Amino acid sequence: MYPARALQYARDKRTRFVSELKDFLRFPSVSSDPDRSADVKRCAEWLARHLRKIGLDRVKVIPTRGHPLVYASWERAPRRPTILIYGHFDVVPPGPPTKWRIPPFAPTVRDGSLHGRGAADDKGQLFCHIKAIESYLRTARALPVNVKCLFEGEEEIGSTHLLQFLDKNRKLLSADAAVISDTKMQAPGRPAISYAQRGGLRAEIEVWGPREELHSGTFGGALLNPIQALCEMIAQLHDKHGRVRIPGFYDDVLELSEAERAYLRRTGPSDERLRREAKVSQGWGEVGYTLYERSTARPALTLNGISGGHTGVGVKGIIPARALAKLSFRLVPGQDPERIGALFREYIQRITPAAVESSVRTFSPIAAAMVDVREPAVRLAALAYRRGFGAAPVFIRSGGSIPVVNAFRKCLGIPSVLMGFGLPGDRIHAANEKFQLQNFYRGINTSIWYLQAAAGIRTRRSSGMEQPEAAGML
Amino acid sequence: MYPARALQYARDKRTRFVSELKDFLRFPSVSSDPDRSADVKRCAEWLARHLRKIGLDRVKVIPTRGHPLVYASWERAPRRPTILIYGHFDVVPPGPPTKWRIPPFAPTVRDGSLHGRGAADDKGQLFCHIKAIESYLRTARALPVNVKCLFEGEEEIGSTHLLQFLDKNRKLLSADAAVISDTKMQAPGRPAISYAQRGGLRAEIEVWGPREELHSGTFGGALLNPIQALCEMIAQLHDKHGRVRIPGFYDDVLELSEAERAYLRRTGPSDERLRREAKVSQGWGEVGYTLYERSTARPALTLNGISGGHTGVGVKGIIPARALAKLSFRLVPGQDPERIGALFREYIQRITPAAVESSVRTFSPIAAAMVDVREPAVRLAALAYRRGFGAAPVFIRSGGSIPVVNAFRKCLGIPSVLMGFGLPGDRIHAANEKFQLQNFYRGINTSIWYLQAAAGIRTRRSSGMEQPEAAGML
Repeated sequence: MYPARALQYARDKRTRFVSELKDFLRFPSVSSDPDRSADVKRCAEWLARHLRKIGLDRVKVIPTRGHPLVYASWERAPRRPTILIYGHFDVVPPGPPTKWRIPPFAPTVRDGSLHGRGAADDKGQLFCHIKAIESYLRTARALPVNVKCLFEGEEEIGSTHLLQFLDKNRKLLSADAAVISDTKMQAPGRPAISYAQRGGLRAEIEVWGPREELHSGTFGGALLNPIQALCEMIAQLHDKHGRVRIPGFYDDVLELSEAERAYLRRTGPSDERLRREAKVSQGWGEVGYTLYERSTARPALTLNGISGGHTGVGVKGIIPARALAKLSFRLVPGQDPERIGALFREYIQRITPAAVESSVRTFSPIAAAMVDVREPAVRLAALAYRRGFGAAPVFIRSGGSIPVVNAFRKCLGIPSVLMGFGLPGDRIHAANEKFQLQNFYRGINTSIWYLQAAAGIRTRRSSGMEQPEAAGML
Repeated sequence: MYPARALQYARDKRTRFVSELKDFLRFPSVSSDPDRSADVKRCAEWLARHLRKIGLDRVKVIPTRGHPLVYASWERAPRRPTILIYGHFDVVPPGPPTKWRIPPFAPTVRDGSLHGRGAADDKGQLFCHIKAIESYLRTARALPVNVKCLFEGEEEIGSTHLLQFLDKNRKLLSADAAVISDTKMQAPGRPAISYAQRGGLRAEIEVWGPREELHSGTFGGALLNPIQALCEMIAQLHDKHGRVRIPGFYDDVLELSEAERAYLRRTGPSDERLRREAKVSQGWGEVGYTLYERSTARPALTLNGISGGHTGVGVKGIIPARALAKLSFRLVPGQDPERIGALFREYIQRITPAAVESSVRTFSPIAAAMVDVREPAVRLAALAYRRGFGAAPVFIRSGGSIPVVNAFRKCLGIPSVLMGFGLPGDRIHAANEKFQLQNFYRGINTSIWYLQAAAGIRTRRSSGMEQPEAAGML
């Protein structure tokens, strides 16, 4: 089933595809806004109708306690592998309309890009796969592999109900590999496959001093101030080499191989480029690693917020009663979030000065995720990119966490291929979000090639293959 | 002019005095509440009428850009010294009415105390002096000394307009000593004269990291977080012996003499008592000093507030762009607030990590104030207390700052005698504020004795006496 006819179809129907994507973008499906619930639902219903129209089977809008899921499948190729395509149709709020050059939910093509909230994150990207499927079904009346589509309306608010659904519907969702297009390319014309995401753990430290706020004239100098105590504790979280000082923190870290480090140096962003992206004059962190390694392959502890005492305008001469810091760990393969939480609690308890009290809360543990780039599902994605974009993808590490990748591994036992079609300059989550039409077309082509190539993935039944937890590769 | 008749008059008229004080307390003269401006003004007018009625001359309500001042004088004793009596008729807001046992502006006598907002702070205390003056004028038709009264309506909001008025009316207000009754006794039956107040300096440290908030997944571990930097800087403000680490900070500190330390140990609150008052299990601070010394005779640096990044509910995985700390220095005699500010700025600049930027703002410099207890104005106050209360006063150091004390020293060149009639349990600034009637009566008697004794102060014209800046004494 050489995909020439599907590719030709996709080329011929570009105008209609863009017009349909505009319809998709017109729904203000802002998942975090309770007033937009009906819009999220209407968007799900539109998407389901669309999936039916292009010829998918078993299309369902699945209600949850939050926003609905949309499911569809095509399973008419027995003995062929099954690909699970994931995406999300919810969007983040548009922010102040005055910052937009067009109304955020009135999609418009300008300078070769489709502008509008959700254009790149993630409606435009997931639509690439839908249009690839359509191109096959309308030409060959069949797909090269079995396909299951799972689209959610809560990615921007934590995917809670999707994760519950996954856990309870392992059989329905069973597949050989997942494809997720919700990430970025490295640069225009330079596609990327993310093979590693850091995990995470959130934490709060609270420090209590006197039971009530006290006058700093009356008691200043005779009592330990909880803000001071908290700051002195936080100052003990890193050593002067930028390393986290919690005993045991690095014990289980899977070190980078020399080969992988060489690959990251050769293909990844330079320190200079990362400084420019962050708009800072100087980097910081663990001595002996590049900024790219520090922010993706090494664990980190970041303060997200701090508060205590009088923070309003003017002055208030007080010794406050409490102070609070919010922080997040970014963890790498090998590190167990629960164990890191225990080590952290123990360390904080040990370094709390006797004159105050402290408590630690930890939550949202997420293990790091890694896909072996030697996996057929990944190697074949690289092949599809070469055909669809005319360029080999770079394999990149990501610093953030994508919970669904872990969940696919844990609940379904399958690897996820993170095949991004967005650009670093697409302004996702900001005003004037856009998606280059060229990348939309190339994304469709890449998906057409991938569905074709994925026929070469050995099915799990036939291989009995165990998925590796992490991997030395590259 | 032996004050027997004045004392007898004061005893005979107690019922009326209490009834008049109730009238005074009925004005809701809350200076911080713009809706109460008219009440503050009405209260000033009532006070002025009252001062006229008891026989004072040159009574004036003096408008300012804020709340008015009330001035009155009696200067019919040429060659006798002049006493400047200061007090304030504004009050702090009553807070939630449900916390009061009586409506806060419906003064009521209960269990031997007059309850109501302002009863002790400061209407009741300043009224002691007014009733002492009346007792002389209604019996002897004269006072033992010249008297000037200066009452303000902005003490609780910073005394801004009083300080401006002082600066421009040095001649009108010229006197030989000031008396301020706006402090506390040490315990029931144990009066106190405060002979030292710490000075102060407010400061803010701001630290900037990246120009905009960044995603902590993308950059965590590769950039210095401004919260972390600020905490690490704050951790360098104190050494492990509880001393401030700013170089030069202690250079000009006037050390306590052995005699004064022995006096403070003998007469002042124990560590245990101060811990109990602060409701903490453990003290903290400069090794080698008692908690009383640390909080009154030693300088201190106190964090009043800190903020940065996400401080609301929930989590937000960010590297913030900035963090801010508010702090206050408490300074002791010898220390120059401006020099301390310069040393602080220099030190912060030096310890700011290269990967972030910082700025420091300092404001509200106040020098420490000290009155030599050997000054006649003070010695005679001790004598008056012995007669009025039947107990010798304790000389105490205060940890806070009273700007007007400094202003009297600076603008008028006179010492202030801080003669408090309130009790630690009078609940000033809290619900159910009260003033013991016994202390009201004894306060009047003490003032009667003081006006008599103050005739023994040598006038400045006759002595040409320079006021000492600080003193070794006790």
